[in-house]
Amino acid sequence: MSLLKAAILGGGNIADNNHIPALKQLADRVELVAVCGRDLAKARALADKHGIAHAFDSTRSLYEQCAPDMVVICTPNNLHFTQTMEALAHNCHVFCEKPPAIAAQQAQDMANLAAQKGLTLAYNFQLRQTSEWELLMRCRADGLLGDIYHINAHFLRRRGIPGWGYFTNKAVQGGGALMDLGVHVLDLALYALGYPTPDQVLGNTFDLIGKAGGKGLMGNWDPKTFEVEDAATAYLSFPNNVSIMLSASFALNTQADKDRNLEIFGSKGGAKLLPFSLHTEVAGELADIQFPYLEETDIQLKNTTAFLDACDGKPSTVCTAEQGAILQEIVERIYRSAEKK
Amino acid sequence: MSLLKAAILGGGNIADNNHIPALKQLADRVELVAVCGRDLAKARALADKHGIAHAFDSTRSLYEQCAPDMVVICTPNNLHFTQTMEALAHNCHVFCEKPPAIAAQQAQDMANLAAQKGLTLAYNFQLRQTSEWELLMRCRADGLLGDIYHINAHFLRRRGIPGWGYFTNKAVQGGGALMDLGVHVLDLALYALGYPTPDQVLGNTFDLIGKAGGKGLMGNWDPKTFEVEDAATAYLSFPNNVSIMLSASFALNTQADKDRNLEIFGSKGGAKLLPFSLHTEVAGELADIQFPYLEETDIQLKNTTAFLDACDGKPSTVCTAEQGAILQEIVERIYRSAEKK
Amino acid sequence: MSLLKAAILGGGNIADNNHIPALKQLADRVELVAVCGRDLAKARALADKHGIAHAFDSTRSLYEQCAPDMVVICTPNNLHFTQTMEALAHNCHVFCEKPPAIAAQQAQDMANLAAQKGLTLAYNFQLRQTSEWELLMRCRADGLLGDIYHINAHFLRRRGIPGWGYFTNKAVQGGGALMDLGVHVLDLALYALGYPTPDQVLGNTFDLIGKAGGKGLMGNWDPKTFEVEDAATAYLSFPNNVSIMLSASFALNTQADKDRNLEIFGSKGGAKLLPFSLHTEVAGELADIQFPYLEETDIQLKNTTAFLDACDGKPSTVCTAEQGAILQEIVERIYRSAEKK
Amino acid sequence: MSLLKAAILGGGNIADNNHIPALKQLADRVELVAVCGRDLAKARALADKHGIAHAFDSTRSLYEQCAPDMVVICTPNNLHFTQTMEALAHNCHVFCEKPPAIAAQQAQDMANLAAQKGLTLAYNFQLRQTSEWELLMRCRADGLLGDIYHINAHFLRRRGIPGWGYFTNKAVQGGGALMDLGVHVLDLALYALGYPTPDQVLGNTFDLIGKAGGKGLMGNWDPKTFEVEDAATAYLSFPNNVSIMLSASFALNTQADKDRNLEIFGSKGGAKLLPFSLHTEVAGELADIQFPYLEETDIQLKNTTAFLDACDGKPSTVCTAEQGAILQEIVERIYRSAEKK
Amino acid sequence: MSLLKAAILGGGNIADNNHIPALKQLADRVELVAVCGRDLAKARALADKHGIAHAFDSTRSLYEQCAPDMVVICTPNNLHFTQTMEALAHNCHVFCEKPPAIAAQQAQDMANLAAQKGLTLAYNFQLRQTSEWELLMRCRADGLLGDIYHINAHFLRRRGIPGWGYFTNKAVQGGGALMDLGVHVLDLALYALGYPTPDQVLGNTFDLIGKAGGKGLMGNWDPKTFEVEDAATAYLSFPNNVSIMLSASFALNTQADKDRNLEIFGSKGGAKLLPFSLHTEVAGELADIQFPYLEETDIQLKNTTAFLDACDGKPSTVCTAEQGAILQEIVERIYRSAEKK
Amino acid sequence: MSLLKAAILGGGNIADNNHIPALKQLADRVELVAVCGRDLAKARALADKHGIAHAFDSTRSLYEQCAPDMVVICTPNNLHFTQTMEALAHNCHVFCEKPPAIAAQQAQDMANLAAQKGLTLAYNFQLRQTSEWELLMRCRADGLLGDIYHINAHFLRRRGIPGWGYFTNKAVQGGGALMDLGVHVLDLALYALGYPTPDQVLGNTFDLIGKAGGKGLMGNWDPKTFEVEDAATAYLSFPNNVSIMLSASFALNTQADKDRNLEIFGSKGGAKLLPFSLHTEVAGELADIQFPYLEETDIQLKNTTAFLDACDGKPSTVCTAEQGAILQEIVERIYRSAEKK
Repeated sequence: MSLLKAAILGGGNIADNNHIPALKQLADRVELVAVCGRDLAKARALADKHGIAHAFDSTRSLYEQCAPDMVVICTPNNLHFTQTMEALAHNCHVFCEKPPAIAAQQAQDMANLAAQKGLTLAYNFQLRQTSEWELLMRCRADGLLGDIYHINAHFLRRRGIPGWGYFTNKAVQGGGALMDLGVHVLDLALYALGYPTPDQVLGNTFDLIGKAGGKGLMGNWDPKTFEVEDAATAYLSFPNNVSIMLSASFALNTQADKDRNLEIFGSKGGAKLLPFSLHTEVAGELADIQFPYLEETDIQLKNTTAFLDACDGKPSTVCTAEQGAILQEIVERIYRSAEKK
Repeated sequence: MSLLKAAILGGGNIADNNHIPALKQLADRVELVAVCGRDLAKARALADKHGIAHAFDSTRSLYEQCAPDMVVICTPNNLHFTQTMEALAHNCHVFCEKPPAIAAQQAQDMANLAAQKGLTLAYNFQLRQTSEWELLMRCRADGLLGDIYHINAHFLRRRGIPGWGYFTNKAVQGGGALMDLGVHVLDLALYALGYPTPDQVLGNTFDLIGKAGGKGLMGNWDPKTFEVEDAATAYLSFPNNVSIMLSASFALNTQADKDRNLEIFGSKGGAKLLPFSLHTEVAGELADIQFPYLEETDIQLKNTTAFLDACDGKPSTVCTAEQGAILQEIVERIYRSAEKK
Repeated sequence: MSLLKAAILGGGNIADNNHIPALKQLADRVELVAVCGRDLAKARALADKHGIAHAFDSTRSLYEQCAPDMVVICTPNNLHFTQTMEALAHNCHVFCEKPPAIAAQQAQDMANLAAQKGLTLAYNFQLRQTSEWELLMRCRADGLLGDIYHINAHFLRRRGIPGWGYFTNKAVQGGGALMDLGVHVLDLALYALGYPTPDQVLGNTFDLIGKAGGKGLMGNWDPKTFEVEDAATAYLSFPNNVSIMLSASFALNTQADKDRNLEIFGSKGGAKLLPFSLHTEVAGELADIQFPYLEETDIQLKNTTAFLDACDGKPSTVCTAEQGAILQEIVERIYRSAEKK
Repeated sequence: MSLLKAAILGGGNIADNNHIPALKQLADRVELVAVCGRDLAKARALADKHGIAHAFDSTRSLYEQCAPDMVVICTPNNLHFTQTMEALAHNCHVFCEKPPAIAAQQAQDMANLAAQKGLTLAYNFQLRQTSEWELLMRCRADGLLGDIYHINAHFLRRRGIPGWGYFTNKAVQGGGALMDLGVHVLDLALYALGYPTPDQVLGNTFDLIGKAGGKGLMGNWDPKTFEVEDAATAYLSFPNNVSIMLSASFALNTQADKDRNLEIFGSKGGAKLLPFSLHTEVAGELADIQFPYLEETDIQLKNTTAFLDACDGKPSTVCTAEQGAILQEIVERIYRSAEKK
Repeated sequence: MSLLKAAILGGGNIADNNHIPALKQLADRVELVAVCGRDLAKARALADKHGIAHAFDSTRSLYEQCAPDMVVICTPNNLHFTQTMEALAHNCHVFCEKPPAIAAQQAQDMANLAAQKGLTLAYNFQLRQTSEWELLMRCRADGLLGDIYHINAHFLRRRGIPGWGYFTNKAVQGGGALMDLGVHVLDLALYALGYPTPDQVLGNTFDLIGKAGGKGLMGNWDPKTFEVEDAATAYLSFPNNVSIMLSASFALNTQADKDRNLEIFGSKGGAKLLPFSLHTEVAGELADIQFPYLEETDIQLKNTTAFLDACDGKPSTVCTAEQGAILQEIVERIYRSAEKK
Repeated sequence: MSLLKAAILGGGNIADNNHIPALKQLADRVELVAVCGRDLAKARALADKHGIAHAFDSTRSLYEQCAPDMVVICTPNNLHFTQTMEALAHNCHVFCEKPPAIAAQQAQDMANLAAQKGLTLAYNFQLRQTSEWELLMRCRADGLLGDIYHINAHFLRRRGIPGWGYFTNKAVQGGGALMDLGVHVLDLALYALGYPTPDQVLGNTFDLIGKAGGKGLMGNWDPKTFEVEDAATAYLSFPNNVSIMLSASFALNTQADKDRNLEIFGSKGGAKLLPFSLHTEVAGELADIQFPYLEETDIQLKNTTAFLDACDGKPSTVCTAEQGAILQEIVERIYRSAEKK
């Protein structure tokens, strides 16, 4: 099998720490040919560090000189749309960081173009690859949960407004805690339900702590330039009496430093994701099941592998372009619901 | 001060264990004159047990022979409306068990008639009287919470479908877990916010476990006659970006046997009710505050006292007729939201 | 259905606290007619306390005057044999305290006579009736354990040599910790395996602490009259590579005050009895299953009911005469193994 | 004092990680001159890594060219016998990995030849050198245990069938969990008792999990080639009413991942090895003694030192040739007992 | 042996709950003949409740009419002196509640008179009779502590200013936390050292919380009439470099509700009283010893027995008149040290 | 701003691990020019390791050749006095390791000369820079403690007599546990109170364990050359009823390996330092406040910065020359109090 030629767009931490190491471990399937970043020197340094031949500061040069088969997009959220459309136009498969984009229509357009071109577009929701999530999927498949009818999903930080990057800049990020953190657990909750589209969406966003300032646990943020929500809550209602409760926060007056979890309630059993436990009946008695030996795995490696499988037309657990479009639309509906109040 | 003459409507457990003992401790303010129940012998026995002079099986006889100043209504939910209206018509103050009624219009009519007659109508949401709730109210008043903008309220049982009474009978109870359990924590959540009316309500109800049957932890129920929801979830959105997430269950595949709690999130601090803890900043650092010596108190005695204070025109923390009407309407909107799916 | 006329032989604690209360709760099946004890005054007092008509100090008088249908034998171990044989001769069903007897041949003779007379003889191993044991039996029946091939059974006390009664008197008791405590868990272990007879038995008994004296946790014992084993260990080997390890102690230099438990190892799953847990695979992962809501039940009432069911020819979980004979023979083989060293 | 010239037989992990590092730290007593392995290149690489001059793939060459004073045997179990006999024949002291051999007669022959040649043959049961075991020996010597009369010894893994090497190959290993793990705790138990020979041995071996396959926690094994026992249980009975209960498993449906421990019961006190605790009487009261500051030590270094001390005729705690023969015979009696069923 | 005729002076709780029940259990040694209290009706009621023949409101009548052999003094602290002197003058043994008196000279005079009359005078420091203290004394006697050279003794309450009685009245009580609570642990500390007299005493008393008021955990106190110390700290220095640190509080901003304990440091071992633990070396290693099975005993019964033993001239652990005088002098020196600042 | 030229006196661990790394991080304020030690080769090696230009074995050469602006004194306690006086004479600021000196008069002379020369002399009590201590100071400043009236300060080791250096040599160290460990917590306690001078001091020192020998947890010490106290206790009494209890030990029969802590009691609140907790009233209830997110900081870097700030005439939290003289005098008074017994 010939190797896919891959280029990295965006030369920041996530490229350096997640995507490039994963791709290098998959050298039997991919050849990393280029890094393209805003700052050529930085791109060059990153390429050198990882033994990648080319570095660019313009995607045009990249496509002209390297003709990659696939690109990995690790740029700020507001660039995902144009860079994906351009890559698809150059007949590249696209593995794009989350969230898909900053507007629902963008994500839909991206999905449409990928479908039209017959290319793989996928999003890097790598939490799908944890041992806990895989076990949940097996439990669901084995019928241990029965019909799932309600999910609580939350990704909360007490004072985790990042003190670096663009996290509090609305134009670049498209939003705050929901856009950055909430999408991870929303993707999982939707995935558990088969990625349905909700009938109704109701939500609120908040910013009182972010705008007031105070002690930070992930560096210090500037309350004067804080433009996004520090927290969001929402309720999604699906056909056949199925619901999701969603919460996300950068800052919230709660006890835990960080709290990311899902509770999945089904007719036969319920599951909590972290630590994974199952609540059901065994031998006619109410039973709690623990799994003490789940391994921690390299979830980026597994998710990149899943993307490559999708490119090869194999079954894959990666988040598809269509799923990304559904998710992005829900995010937009939550923000719209919050605004009209 | 002359004593209020009081009569008890409904001779079941809640009269025997809660209301009558409380009223007997308040003998300096109330004289218990009669018990009125469906079954005269049972009413007579209860009256004798507590040294109450009269027993009736018809409210007409009660009002004719005893002319009470106040009645306590401890009958099934579907009788609350007619018995309250009748009592008000006989110029009695009314202390009615929760929920107020089984339809929003009923609760509104009850409130209207009480207002028109200048009588006190109040509902027995006695969880307002716990030490924890009183402390929360003091923390709010002292500004320790700042502006409250989101509340999680839940009252969950894993397999607590009562195996006795009418709890699974829709005509009598008007609903299931939401009507019986959820109203308690909904009342508290609304009270913390100043009892606003929500702009929007979205909810779902479920009955898969109730209809399937299985192991019970509060006696055994009959899945074949199970007509109500075994669980309900809802989201209430209020003006100025304020929200409540509400969950209630008789049966849910979760770990804890029983789990009743509220989390209140404010701009200065957040509180968890049980065990009471406060999450805020002290001396410039993130701090968690515990209160290890809160006493357990006789919450029924305190709520009955609050009712009597209201009758006397004094400040009172009892749930008013107007609050009851707001709550009942929200419950109805949740059921309606759940039905139209 | 006509009531069985029952008599109690032995008027001590176990009659007073266990058997008579259980039989009184089963008044729809049994009529308690007499107590027979060594000391007529004591027997009379016990009969009066429980509203039983007759009291005797000779079994001959009992059988002549009352003609009972069944007897419950609560006398010291060394009387079980003669009293059972006499009762069977008088056509009574017999519910005998554990251990069956103090010699294997006695238990075999008792079983033979019961079989010959078509009467029910059973032993009061009431630990068969705990919620945990019932759950284990259901797990086994549901195939959750697979084939059981090894059991660890122990009943250990650190310093629990009873300071009262005949517990250290060999002629009366027939033995020490094995005869008094070990038989309980041995019965359970054998029951879990289908009550097979072992191919080989190897064991040892010890008495160094009992004979040395020291601090007691169940009263004080006299080391000078200590005649029995303070501890015993044994290994039973059954056909098809199945084994039981058995330990029992009145006194042992171990940490726990009291420690009674069984570990059951099967090809599909293993179980620990207290607190009940199951160790197996679920959804392809190693899993531990807990059952947090097992109820404590009245095990004597349930075991007496099981005996009556056996008398009525219904399926029953009571320890049968045949099982008692197998168990008694194993106990004797352990003692013999220990002696010949 | 002149240095002993030492050679390593077997160039695998245990040579690389245990024996060679220990010997290098003892450079004032030993000179490592050669490594001899099946695969010359691998032996050469290991020798180079550790700065050892010679590498061989034939023991004949080794003895001819290097004339070592001692050899350390780190080869598979089935080679221990011939390599030891050959080394002794070449007048070498022998430090052999456990188990001594795969048959009782082999271990006896090895001991006989060593005795006849006046050479030191010892086995690497390095658990004798832990701080806990040393403390137990001091407690025994100080009389804190009194007379020891029963020991529970176990070395259990839940799913620890090694997924590498020859651990499931009967011809190479001579057995499974008993041969690989059980011998460690059996050696300790025998050592605590003075290494007596048992009067009687009864045991069983099992293989249902090993042959069925499933989840592994130490790599994955192939159930189709699984030839050894996955678990073994045994009871050893010694003169004067002393007993050992022994359990070992590669795979067992129990809770703990790994559980290796000994409980030693004596007339004055009892000890649990891990964490070390003593259960006895102090000042007339039942007391539990903990030792919170036991250090972890380099047990291989200490055991290798003990071997060298033995070679020098000094007192030593290393497992002697005679002890190894006793242990090997017990292992064989356990297997024989298990087979004849 | 003829019975001692005993009278109770002071008819409050401590007579009712402690001394009278203890004396009634010792009916083979004592005959309770009278209760004498300020309020005759109350004294009469107490006497009737316990089946005591006589009741008085004047000690003169008591001595004239009953001629008791011993009296138990349960009156407020400021009456201990005169009542003891009067009782001794009437040739009665005296068992007096703690503290001995409210001035050092009083306690010395009491001791002198008792000695002169050859009567037993003792104080009810009943904490000497706990299982923990008895074990400490045995450990000391067995040499497990070596030479004791420092003791930390404290009896602290967070907000335990009693809301009843005279506890905050200086004239009646003689002091606050030190006089009421501190004396208990001071007595134990002195007893452990052999009741030496200190060379030097340095201390302080505090009253900021008592005078400020606030939340109480033992009822509510009135800060306006708070005259005593709410806390006291002191250091006692004895010959040969031995020291005691002492703390006592009715109110202190510390975590625990109540905290009473002693730490005893000796050359061979140290002990903490609650829960009792010993810190020493065993078998050459640092060891911690726990005693999990200490029984709770009836310490009043044991201390009253000790008093009677003293009356009979037998060895006794009761606090003697001489010890009481030493203790009272130390208390006075602490108060004097605190005042002169 | 021109850089201060700094020299290090004493080339041991504390220079290498603490002071030099801190000074190198402050290269914008300080230039490290020389190391001066007893052993020139060692001083040279240390200088080379850290890139420092000069090394000396005589302070005279140092001052002649380098003319430093400041010196850091890391030599044994008995050299602090002469080296500080010499440095001040050469117009150097001095940052001296704790304790200030080994006699009170020395510390006073040092402070006097520094004041006279207008130079900064400060001591390295770096525990003033922990997050916990800074938080305590903020709590005090915010009034959360009210008036502080008692402090318990202790620094205890169970068997922490250092097995290296001069720690047991009285001439070099000036004392034992009090001089080495106690001074740290004494400095903090005095600092919390505003560094007052006590009216009265009472104390004792002990050496029974140090002179007896035994198991060590910080290496092994030689009991035959043990000249200092292994433990010390003291009580300091200040004007206006304020007190400090102080304990320090190298060796004590207590449970914890190491236990360093302060409890600070004030009229409004009390604090425990480790883990930091506040005990007070909030909203009318007794409350305990925890601060779960205090960061560990580089306390040496912060204390060295504080010294430099003091040199620059800025506000500083470093221990001043005057404070050091007060502390040294208290230490001397404690030793004197202990001696005269």
